[in-house]
Amino acid sequence: MSRTRLERFSDAVFAVAITLLALNLAVAGPGHGPLLHQVADHWPSFVAYLISFATIGLIWVNHHALIENVAVVDRTMALLNLVLLVFVVLIPVDTATVAKYIALGGQDAQVAVVLYAAAFVGMGLSFAGIFEWTLRTGRLRQPLPARARLKARLQFGAASILYLAAIALAFVSPPVALAIIAAVPIYYIFERLPVVGSPTSDRAQT
Amino acid sequence: MSRTRLERFSDAVFAVAITLLALNLAVAGPGHGPLLHQVADHWPSFVAYLISFATIGLIWVNHHALIENVAVVDRTMALLNLVLLVFVVLIPVDTATVAKYIALGGQDAQVAVVLYAAAFVGMGLSFAGIFEWTLRTGRLRQPLPARARLKARLQFGAASILYLAAIALAFVSPPVALAIIAAVPIYYIFERLPVVGSPTSDRAQT
Amino acid sequence: MSRTRLERFSDAVFAVAITLLALNLAVAGPGHGPLLHQVADHWPSFVAYLISFATIGLIWVNHHALIENVAVVDRTMALLNLVLLVFVVLIPVDTATVAKYIALGGQDAQVAVVLYAAAFVGMGLSFAGIFEWTLRTGRLRQPLPARARLKARLQFGAASILYLAAIALAFVSPPVALAIIAAVPIYYIFERLPVVGSPTSDRAQT
Amino acid sequence: MSRTRLERFSDAVFAVAITLLALNLAVAGPGHGPLLHQVADHWPSFVAYLISFATIGLIWVNHHALIENVAVVDRTMALLNLVLLVFVVLIPVDTATVAKYIALGGQDAQVAVVLYAAAFVGMGLSFAGIFEWTLRTGRLRQPLPARARLKARLQFGAASILYLAAIALAFVSPPVALAIIAAVPIYYIFERLPVVGSPTSDRAQT
Repeated sequence: MSRTRLERFSDAVFAVAITLLALNLAVAGPGHGPLLHQVADHWPSFVAYLISFATIGLIWVNHHALIENVAVVDRTMALLNLVLLVFVVLIPVDTATVAKYIALGGQDAQVAVVLYAAAFVGMGLSFAGIFEWTLRTGRLRQPLPARARLKARLQFGAASILYLAAIALAFVSPPVALAIIAAVPIYYIFERLPVVGSPTSDRAQT
Repeated sequence: MSRTRLERFSDAVFAVAITLLALNLAVAGPGHGPLLHQVADHWPSFVAYLISFATIGLIWVNHHALIENVAVVDRTMALLNLVLLVFVVLIPVDTATVAKYIALGGQDAQVAVVLYAAAFVGMGLSFAGIFEWTLRTGRLRQPLPARARLKARLQFGAASILYLAAIALAFVSPPVALAIIAAVPIYYIFERLPVVGSPTSDRAQT
Repeated sequence: MSRTRLERFSDAVFAVAITLLALNLAVAGPGHGPLLHQVADHWPSFVAYLISFATIGLIWVNHHALIENVAVVDRTMALLNLVLLVFVVLIPVDTATVAKYIALGGQDAQVAVVLYAAAFVGMGLSFAGIFEWTLRTGRLRQPLPARARLKARLQFGAASILYLAAIALAFVSPPVALAIIAAVPIYYIFERLPVVGSPTSDRAQT
Repeated sequence: MSRTRLERFSDAVFAVAITLLALNLAVAGPGHGPLLHQVADHWPSFVAYLISFATIGLIWVNHHALIENVAVVDRTMALLNLVLLVFVVLIPVDTATVAKYIALGGQDAQVAVVLYAAAFVGMGLSFAGIFEWTLRTGRLRQPLPARARLKARLQFGAASILYLAAIALAFVSPPVALAIIAAVPIYYIFERLPVVGSPTSDRAQT
């Protein structure tokens, strides 16, 4: 399979999922109280929107970095990529659920955050799976030094552990768990995945 | 017509359809019982989501393999491809219908599964139609040996027969029919379509 | 502007619009009578779905043929293309309206068909506008002989006249008007737009 | 990151957002009065649809012109582009809110227009941010003369000031504020962004 088509399909799925996120922000409309109050009561939707947008956006950036260094897309990688997308596609729905329940507290808020974090765990593991497969088959355009491999694994591991911690914490405090989920993409804004061989790869790969 | 534009349009339709699948998973929201119960009662939606996601995903992989070996996209192939997409686009709606009715049993569950399987039959036949057209017009980048042709036809035939069997079985047991529908993409995970000429084509075509 | 980006954006809009068409086919779900009756009562939706799918699909094919022969996409063409897409994007909504009202008859069915046909008139005129602009600016990859120009204009004219006739006929018989709208894409299945210079262009342009 | 993938992802988001705009035009259906009245009462939706379509469409054209001249897409630009898309994705929802409330007047109409204009302010500022970043990092394919830089900044500034003026005016007269918002894309139809170095760049860059 050509890398272009894998990227194109994935980009389209990322793009549709990220655009559907905003549908959760729709207000009920006239007859449901002043618009200002409707919008104000909607704050969990805005928070959830921003978290999900940032997470999908950063995964898209990292997905690009990861796939960019792959020389050959084989069938297994295409299937692993589909597994990743199973979880990406779940995000808009899980975001809506979190937005509806986070402010209510209680068991429902816990369940909503657990579902949300679980989708991110699935996404993180699939992502790590694609990464390991690229290493194992060795079909890379630029070889990845052992040090970069270790660093990438630590980063993947850190993200997954944070999401698992969010699941555990959700039973204590759903808002704190949500804050941890929000922190992961912020981390990735400042830290790039070391998944390509050369530190000057930016210019070279364009 | 350039192959790129056919792939690009098809990829976008596959991507939108696969992303819309998840919209069926939305819960009703506060005031409809505990979230945990809502999610638990939603299990047919999750099952239907996974089956449809796997089927569309595998069709996308096979579509890629099929089109990749085509040297020239003529108008007839563009139209056959549109016929395929007519059925792809139906999947999200048919998935929602199956999810709503499969657990209720009775005639409604039968009708839902028949509609669902019928869309897959249509998809399988269109796919076979594109394949036969590529052979007949001979506009292939790598010629396909007779043995590979036969194997591909057997595979297409097997999938269509399984979907037709699912339609027949739906009148006896909708869940069993659904299990057969679920089995088809699992089969394609392990078995690749022999639609390109060379066994080492993976590397060569990237 | 690069031709690729114009095509990519247009393809995505066509793909999303064509996929959204199917959302009108969703049944109301349990508690609204036997599924078989719901589906049977839904026949106008299926008819409207097929007509709109065929029309958007054929416009996509023709759009491709038209743009393929353009050497330079200038700002005016990008804007004309946006005007075309204004009408393409309306199709899913107008399709839903026709599906809801066609079977009821009376003034509502007339209005629904007029709105539907009006969107196609707008689409046809924008398409003709893009074609005339490509001729006027002369930025074609292959020059178009006078005879092919005339034939293309007659074909564009014929489609627009048929859609205008559908608007007029809608006041007499909405179903007959709908049949005319359905006939246009069928015509384009058999007749290709003579918008590229060479009759052997298929192979050459791939 | 390759420029192609940034453009592809952005194009898909623009395309999905622009197509979702039309969903706000759906009529309630039978049982809600004559269709003609439903459509007539829907005029704010049509006005808002056209304004949003024109604005997203022109931003897409300008986005293309801007990115086209970038030689290297670095991580910061990818992130700035995501910030731009955060606001693009909000447009369909904000358009629906304006359409629901503009005709009612009062505080609700003011809030709706402020939300709408605020999304455009965010979009304008992100756009200017991407532009400044391309200048600062100097990774341009064609250098941009000081005069063109100044003109581009004045144009970005003018658009943002108009949107800010619309926010202020919304408290006096929401319809006048909406008219200003509608004027911005009309301005961009006639005036192109001077973001590429050469006046004859159209032909050269295709």
